[in-house]
Amino acid sequence: MRRFVIGRVRNLLETSRQNHQFKRPLLSSSQSPYRFLSSTTLADSPSSSSSSPSTMAPPVTVDTINPKVLECEYAVRGEIVTLAQNLQQEIQKKPDAHPFEEILYCNIGNPQSLGQQPITFFREVLALCDHPSILDKSETQGLFSADSIERAWQILDQIPGRATGAYSHSQGIKGLRDAIAAGIEARDGFPADPNDIFLTDGASPAVHMMMQLLIRSEKDGILCPIPQYPLYSASIALHGGTLVPYYLDEATGWGLEVSELKKQLETAKSKGITVRALVVINPGNPTGQVLAEENQRGIVEFCKQEGLVLLADEVYQENVYVPEKKFHSFKKVSRSMGYGEKDISLVSFQSVSKGYYGECGKRGGYMEVTGFGADVREQIYKVASVNLCSNISGQILASLVMSPPKVGDESYESYSAERDGILSSLARRAKTLEDAFNKLEGVTCNKAEGAMYLFPRICLPEKAIKAAEAAKTAPDAFYCRRLLTATGIVFVPGSGFGQVPGTWHFRCTILPQEDKIPAIVTRLTEFHQSFMDEYRD
Amino acid sequence: MRRFVIGRVRNLLETSRQNHQFKRPLLSSSQSPYRFLSSTTLADSPSSSSSSPSTMAPPVTVDTINPKVLECEYAVRGEIVTLAQNLQQEIQKKPDAHPFEEILYCNIGNPQSLGQQPITFFREVLALCDHPSILDKSETQGLFSADSIERAWQILDQIPGRATGAYSHSQGIKGLRDAIAAGIEARDGFPADPNDIFLTDGASPAVHMMMQLLIRSEKDGILCPIPQYPLYSASIALHGGTLVPYYLDEATGWGLEVSELKKQLETAKSKGITVRALVVINPGNPTGQVLAEENQRGIVEFCKQEGLVLLADEVYQENVYVPEKKFHSFKKVSRSMGYGEKDISLVSFQSVSKGYYGECGKRGGYMEVTGFGADVREQIYKVASVNLCSNISGQILASLVMSPPKVGDESYESYSAERDGILSSLARRAKTLEDAFNKLEGVTCNKAEGAMYLFPRICLPEKAIKAAEAAKTAPDAFYCRRLLTATGIVFVPGSGFGQVPGTWHFRCTILPQEDKIPAIVTRLTEFHQSFMDEYRD
Repeated sequence: MRRFVIGRVRNLLETSRQNHQFKRPLLSSSQSPYRFLSSTTLADSPSSSSSSPSTMAPPVTVDTINPKVLECEYAVRGEIVTLAQNLQQEIQKKPDAHPFEEILYCNIGNPQSLGQQPITFFREVLALCDHPSILDKSETQGLFSADSIERAWQILDQIPGRATGAYSHSQGIKGLRDAIAAGIEARDGFPADPNDIFLTDGASPAVHMMMQLLIRSEKDGILCPIPQYPLYSASIALHGGTLVPYYLDEATGWGLEVSELKKQLETAKSKGITVRALVVINPGNPTGQVLAEENQRGIVEFCKQEGLVLLADEVYQENVYVPEKKFHSFKKVSRSMGYGEKDISLVSFQSVSKGYYGECGKRGGYMEVTGFGADVREQIYKVASVNLCSNISGQILASLVMSPPKVGDESYESYSAERDGILSSLARRAKTLEDAFNKLEGVTCNKAEGAMYLFPRICLPEKAIKAAEAAKTAPDAFYCRRLLTATGIVFVPGSGFGQVPGTWHFRCTILPQEDKIPAIVTRLTEFHQSFMDEYRD
Repeated sequence: MRRFVIGRVRNLLETSRQNHQFKRPLLSSSQSPYRFLSSTTLADSPSSSSSSPSTMAPPVTVDTINPKVLECEYAVRGEIVTLAQNLQQEIQKKPDAHPFEEILYCNIGNPQSLGQQPITFFREVLALCDHPSILDKSETQGLFSADSIERAWQILDQIPGRATGAYSHSQGIKGLRDAIAAGIEARDGFPADPNDIFLTDGASPAVHMMMQLLIRSEKDGILCPIPQYPLYSASIALHGGTLVPYYLDEATGWGLEVSELKKQLETAKSKGITVRALVVINPGNPTGQVLAEENQRGIVEFCKQEGLVLLADEVYQENVYVPEKKFHSFKKVSRSMGYGEKDISLVSFQSVSKGYYGECGKRGGYMEVTGFGADVREQIYKVASVNLCSNISGQILASLVMSPPKVGDESYESYSAERDGILSSLARRAKTLEDAFNKLEGVTCNKAEGAMYLFPRICLPEKAIKAAEAAKTAPDAFYCRRLLTATGIVFVPGSGFGQVPGTWHFRCTILPQEDKIPAIVTRLTEFHQSFMDEYRD
C-alpha cells in the first residue's frame, strides 16, 4: 500500500491498524498519500509559517463545496413545497391573501401532519418507556391500558439497567431485535435472525448506509426504478455513484419487467459501469403498484444470476388496498424458492413512518441484512457504530409495529379498530382520487394498489408546454405551481421522480383527511378545467 | 459540462435541473459521463443480453466495498468493547466465569447506562408530548408537575396540528428552534437566529453533514486535535478527506497553541492540502481541558485570518468542574471581538447526550450555523431535507436543555437539585479518579477541568511493549485488554484517539456511579501493581 505516513502520526495509524485489522485495499497512485497528514515532515520542508501572508482565504461558497452535494436533488421538499410554505405564512398573516383558506399538502407521505391520529397503544407504551417512574403509581392504571403497562415493563426489562436514555448496542437493543425477528418470522413463515436486524432512524439512514458501503466511485451503478422515490437518486449522488435507470411500464399498471432490467444492466456494463445492486420499491413509490409473487421470483432469480444485491424498499408493506393483491416480502419469496444466505444478498427496509401507524416524526425503522459474509457485516456494524445508535423511542416503536397487540390483549379491539379504520379510509381515498383524476381531460391514472400515492399522467397541451418553457420551468412543474397558487393544493411534479421523456405526471398523496377529499376534487377539477381552457391547443 | 446524457433519461435530468437550479461545477474529463446512465444508447451498442452467460458475478466482499468504509475506524466501540460484551455474556451464563462480577464500562460517555437517572422534568414533558391525549385527564395532575403539563401544551401548540408523529421542517420545529435560540442568547449575551439552528439526531449527524459539505477529495484537509474524539477521524475517512493533526500539549494541561495550528496549517499547504476547517473540542474529549477565553480569541483570529470554518464541538458546555474555569462559546467569543456573520464561518455543535442530562438514547442535538452565504445554507438545508427531519422527541429535548425550568416554576427546586447533584458528583468522581491515577507507578494524569473523561499517560516498561509486539497489538491496547480480563474495567486505549508517538494513554470516563468508584480504584491499583511487577524492566 502506498502510504507516506511517517513520524509522529505514524503511531496513530499503525496502532489503530493493529487494533482493528480491517483489510484495506490498495490505493491507486493518483490518490494523495496524505490521508492522515504527517507532521514531522515539517522538519524536511521549509517552514513557511512566519513568512505566510495573513491574507484571508476564500470563504466557503457553492463553488467550493463538495460537488456531490450540489448534484443531489430532493424534489419531495423542493421548490414547490418551499413556495407552499411561503403561501402558508402569508395566509397566517392575512387570511384573505390568497383564493384559498389553507394549504393542502399532498406532496409527502406524512399522515399525522394531515390529521391522522396515532395508534393509542403505541403511544401509551412510548410514554411509559419515556417516564418509567410512573409505572408503579396507582393513577397510571386509570390512564393507561393494562397491556401497555405490561408491554412497557417487558421492554424495560430488555434494556440494560432499564435505561431508555442510554446509547444502545449499535444495531439496536437486542430484545427489541428479537421481537422484530419474531414478527418477520410470523409474517413470512421463514426464520429471521435478530443479528441480521439493524435498527435505524427511519429507513433513509439505512439506505444511505448501504449506498455508502456499495459505491466506490462513479463507475459503480445502482439499478433504480423510474419513476423512483428521490431518496435513491439523492443518496446515489451524495455517494458519488451512478444511477442506472429501469423503467416501470405505465401501460401495464407500472409493471416491472425482468427483460427491462436485463437490458439496462447490459447497457450499463457496455459503458463500463459495474452494477452492484437493484432497488425495488414494493408497494411502489410514487407509483402505488403491488408486485405479483411470480414477478418477484423473476427479480430474485435475476439478482442471483447477476450477483446483484437486492435492496428491497418494503416500507409500505401494510399499505395494500385491493383484495386481489397481497404483500410478499422478498425474503419470503427468495426463501420459498429455496435460496438461502449463500445464494442471494438481500436487504429489506422497513419504517415506522408508513403503514397504518404513520409515525414519521419518531424516526424509527430497520433493515434486515441477509446473504453477506461476516467480514462485510462487520463493516456495516462499524459504520453503524460511528453514529452510536438510533433513537430508542424509534427502536421501541419499530418493535411495536412488528409485534402489535394480539387477540385477547386488553388493547386488541381498540387497536384493530384504529388500524382498520385508517387502512379502509386510505383505500376509499385512493379510489376517490383515482376516479377524480381519470375524469379530468387529458389525465389517466393507474390504480393505487398500495403505498400512499397516485401518479397520474397528464397530457399537457403544446401551448402549456411553450408557456412553461417561457417561464423556464418543466411543464409538469408549471402545472403544479399554477395549481398551488390557484387552489393551495401541493402536488410534486413527475420530473422530480423521473418519467418517460415527453410524458408528464405528478405525485399526489392519498393522505388528506376523508372529509377534505370532496373539496380537493372540486378545486382540482375546476382548476384543471380553467387551465385546459386557457392552454387547449 | 461534459455529460453524455441523451434520450430517455435526458428528460429526467433536464427538468429536475430546471426545478432546482443549483449551480453545478464542471466535472473533470476523467470522471465518468454516466452519472445518470443513458438507456437509449442501447440502440447504438450491441445488445448482449441474450448472449451474456449467466455466470454469477462476485458477491459483495470486503475487497469490493467502498474503501473509505474500510479506512474508517471508531475505537470507542472497537475491539476492547467487543471483548467486554463477550465477557458480560459469559458472566450472565456463568456468574463465576471470570474473576469479577460485572463489567465496568468506562469506555464511553453514556451516563444512564451506568445508573445516572434522567432529569424528571425533561422526562415528564417527553412522556406528555408522546401521548398528548392524557393531558386533559384528571389523573395526569397527580402524576405530573404543573409546569411539565404547561410546557407540554406550549410545545404542542408550536407543532402544526399538535402532531408529534409528523415529519417536521427539515431544520426542526420552528417553535423549538425559537426556544433554543433564546437559550443561546441568554447564555452568550449575543443574538441568535432560529433560522441558523439545524436540529439533528445527536451531534454526530451534524458533524457528518458539515464534513460532507466541505470535503471534495483527499486534497481537502480538516485540522483536528490529537488526541481527538474518533468521530472526527471516522467522518473525515468516510467522506474521503485528509485529517490534518494538531497536537494538544499534555505538559501544559492539554494546551491548544495557535503556533501549533499555524505550523500544521503551513505543513498541510506545502503538501498541496487545502485546509477547510478547524475542529476544536471544548471542553476537550478525551482530554477534559477547558479553554481560556484569551486562547479562544487567538483561535478565532486564526480562523478569520486563514479563512477556515471553525467547527466548535461544544457538547460538554455544561460539564465544567473547576471554579477557575468557565465555558465560553466560540459564538460569544467571536461576537465579543466584534466579528459578525461576514467575518467568520462558525458552526457550534450541541447534544442532549452530555451535560448533566446525559440523554444519549434520545438522539437529540443541534448545530448553530453562522457566517455562511444564503446559497451555501440552502445546500445544507437540502442535505438535511434528504433525511426529512430529526426525531421529534430529540428535538423537544434539545429545546428543554436550552430552556430548563426557571426560578418560580413548580419543578425548579427538584430540577436544580437533580442537576447540581449530578454535576457535583461528577466533579468528585473526576477528582478521585485523577488522584488515583496519579498515585499509580509510571502514570501521570492532567486535571479533568470538564467533559466526562480522564486521559492519563502511562509509561510502559520496555518488557510490556515487547510483550505487546509479540501479541501483535499496541502497547496501550495490550494494557487495556489485560486490565479488562483481570478486573472487568473497560478503558479505551489512547491509540484510538491519537497520541504523541512513543507515549501511551488510555481514556477513562468519570461516569461509574460514585459508590462504585472505590472498588474501581482498588481493582485498578491492584491490577496495575501486579502488571508492573510482571513487566518492570
